[in-house]
Amino acid sequence: MIQVYIHPPYERWNSISNRNLQNISHIKNLVTPIINDVKKYGDVALKNYTKKYDHVDIKHIQVTEEDFNKADMKISDHLKKSIETAYQNIKCFHQKQMHKENPIEVSKGVFCWRKIIPIEKIGFYIPGGSAPLFSTVLMLGIPGKLSGCKNIILCSPPNKNGEIHPAILYTAKYVGITQIYKVGGAQAIAAMAYGTKSIPSVYKIFGPGNSYVTISKQIVSQKGIVSIDIPAGPSEVVIMADDSANPEFVASDLLSQSEHDPESYILLVTPNNQFWIKKLKKELRKQFLNFDKKKDIIEESLKKSKIIVLSSLDECLNLVNQVAPEHLIINCKNSFYWSEKVINAGSVFLGNYSPVSAGDYASGTNHVLPTYGYAKSYSGLSMDSFVKKITFQKISKKGLKHLSKCINILSSEEGLFAHKKSINIRLKN
Amino acid sequence: MIQVYIHPPYERWNSISNRNLQNISHIKNLVTPIINDVKKYGDVALKNYTKKYDHVDIKHIQVTEEDFNKADMKISDHLKKSIETAYQNIKCFHQKQMHKENPIEVSKGVFCWRKIIPIEKIGFYIPGGSAPLFSTVLMLGIPGKLSGCKNIILCSPPNKNGEIHPAILYTAKYVGITQIYKVGGAQAIAAMAYGTKSIPSVYKIFGPGNSYVTISKQIVSQKGIVSIDIPAGPSEVVIMADDSANPEFVASDLLSQSEHDPESYILLVTPNNQFWIKKLKKELRKQFLNFDKKKDIIEESLKKSKIIVLSSLDECLNLVNQVAPEHLIINCKNSFYWSEKVINAGSVFLGNYSPVSAGDYASGTNHVLPTYGYAKSYSGLSMDSFVKKITFQKISKKGLKHLSKCINILSSEEGLFAHKKSINIRLKN
Repeated sequence: MIQVYIHPPYERWNSISNRNLQNISHIKNLVTPIINDVKKYGDVALKNYTKKYDHVDIKHIQVTEEDFNKADMKISDHLKKSIETAYQNIKCFHQKQMHKENPIEVSKGVFCWRKIIPIEKIGFYIPGGSAPLFSTVLMLGIPGKLSGCKNIILCSPPNKNGEIHPAILYTAKYVGITQIYKVGGAQAIAAMAYGTKSIPSVYKIFGPGNSYVTISKQIVSQKGIVSIDIPAGPSEVVIMADDSANPEFVASDLLSQSEHDPESYILLVTPNNQFWIKKLKKELRKQFLNFDKKKDIIEESLKKSKIIVLSSLDECLNLVNQVAPEHLIINCKNSFYWSEKVINAGSVFLGNYSPVSAGDYASGTNHVLPTYGYAKSYSGLSMDSFVKKITFQKISKKGLKHLSKCINILSSEEGLFAHKKSINIRLKN
Repeated sequence: MIQVYIHPPYERWNSISNRNLQNISHIKNLVTPIINDVKKYGDVALKNYTKKYDHVDIKHIQVTEEDFNKADMKISDHLKKSIETAYQNIKCFHQKQMHKENPIEVSKGVFCWRKIIPIEKIGFYIPGGSAPLFSTVLMLGIPGKLSGCKNIILCSPPNKNGEIHPAILYTAKYVGITQIYKVGGAQAIAAMAYGTKSIPSVYKIFGPGNSYVTISKQIVSQKGIVSIDIPAGPSEVVIMADDSANPEFVASDLLSQSEHDPESYILLVTPNNQFWIKKLKKELRKQFLNFDKKKDIIEESLKKSKIIVLSSLDECLNLVNQVAPEHLIINCKNSFYWSEKVINAGSVFLGNYSPVSAGDYASGTNHVLPTYGYAKSYSGLSMDSFVKKITFQKISKKGLKHLSKCINILSSEEGLFAHKKSINIRLKN
């Protein structure tokens, strides 16, 4: 059920560890007319597509106070308490991420500074359906609110009764988001990009979704002035394990990743011997048989998953940095030592007791992370994602005089004489 | 030569201050085959396109030690000294932008932290031609080097003699970039995205360029794992002036912006009276007549530029935040007071003695800034642009036990039972 590669030559690492490239052109063709319709017909288009894809007639697109109250009654106290715990931890980790900077006198009379300013209008997309990702509401909403964004809206598809999952509504209200709309898919993304009568347009769209949502986000980000958080793909884990790793735990981490999506990317790299691998595979089978839910998804994604046995942890780490996984578990004796060598990954989990599930829900780190190798150049979501940093400068006449020779020479060399003039005209008296 | 709108009603603000939307589909059609050719044929395609567009046969794509030496000899001591001054100021402002964060014990036994890690491989594009933007080499190279990026390459188109402008070569070497390639346009962007025999592929591409370069950057960023700095468009300035602003200085700032590009976006918003406007227009004409270079470009772009007279500085600032200009000059008595109200802009210049030229070259701030309204959600280039921030966590068995109830309840509610299992299997003994 999992493929094993023993000591493949370096030249083959890339092809073995490669991700499946999704063919997106048919999805592009499918979502483009939806986006155009929403731009043109607004709410009417939203209602039509909601009928078509979510099979429900929506009268009021916006969630009402009554909807919130109903949701509140459906949420158990246990669940409320757990949401609060996760909230506190995520808040604790994120609130230390903003660093105020003081003005700098770069040279005499030349003051420069950066100011952190929250993005004015942002929109969240939260998938609905079988797995209502209210944990993502926490991951987007907490840093969004902490950073001071004033206008936050949220779209999520309704079920057949025209309702958004109560845990999504409860969590949204808990973090302070009350402008919520019952719209999903490409139509929701288009609405947040262009605005409709009911749904205001935003400057940045956040949140995960299936490939229709992801590609719609890409399309609107290329067309207008809306930007998006991270290019998202199927979830990924790479586990780097030595013989200190408990095969039972490692198997549970592989399975945990596999239930997300048949397209999940799952890779174990290890210098361990055949005996350990055998134990792991046995454990994997055993745990798999114990599941009674999502078995099809798990089986499908485990089939594509791989174990690559290499000759040392150094080699394993080399491969890890080439793959640049969304999640990396370093289940090794000296996990901290190895973690210091990681240069490409979204989020890293150290040791036998740091499963990805902890970061998915409650340890405090953000679970919106770069996939598909984007960890080579992108960070996961953080407070940075919700703000802009604007630079300011105030220069005195003396300060400008001091800079003027330098600017004169550089601008002349670049052939920009009006630039030079704008300096000298200020200093002629 | 500049259009004046006196007290237009609010409903018209948007249409008056709108940017011209470029039609990019023909450019897309033009650059796509170039990109595909470079991906397929590598260096051969690079050489062919260099012959076609730069009219020169390039034997060695990479700049040699000899090329650097030749360039060094062509640069005057004055210019070298000015590059050094700018270098020091830009370094001074950027090096304070990285903030190390300590690990946080989110709850007992749950340690989380973020680490700043430079992007491993980056590529710069520097336009050549009539305006060799060696100042941009400083703006990209200084934060790139400071942030610790190990592999930095630079592409710039050769002139008809097969040479890159000596100031670009000199500045690149000065900041520590020595892997330089004589390639421009779409072909350079494709080479950095896909790699050729001569040019290694990179993870992120930076730098300005004409619309061919900009659209090529967008195309490759959608196709592979390469990312790009900022979507770039023609340069922009909005000037907000009250009657303390010297019309002579304001005119020089308008002209300074206009020489960049016939498509430059230039707007003056002011509550000033007709008398001041008249003085400004007179000054603009006078200064324009004094130029002997780039007159066509200046005239073309001034024709499209606008003055909007509004009833108060509050109204002006409202419009500024709607436009979200790349550069904003606040040439007002209480410039600091007004600057505190800015929420959408790339870089802000305060008072009578802070022209944009200062920030373009030497005050220390970065001149690579978001245009086309992207300042609503994007920041200009900074140290942040050259790094990723990876999150790490190390949890003890006790720490995980403490989180387990919360994770169990949340993951069950999301229907992710293997996630729950990965926690409980670790705690069963």
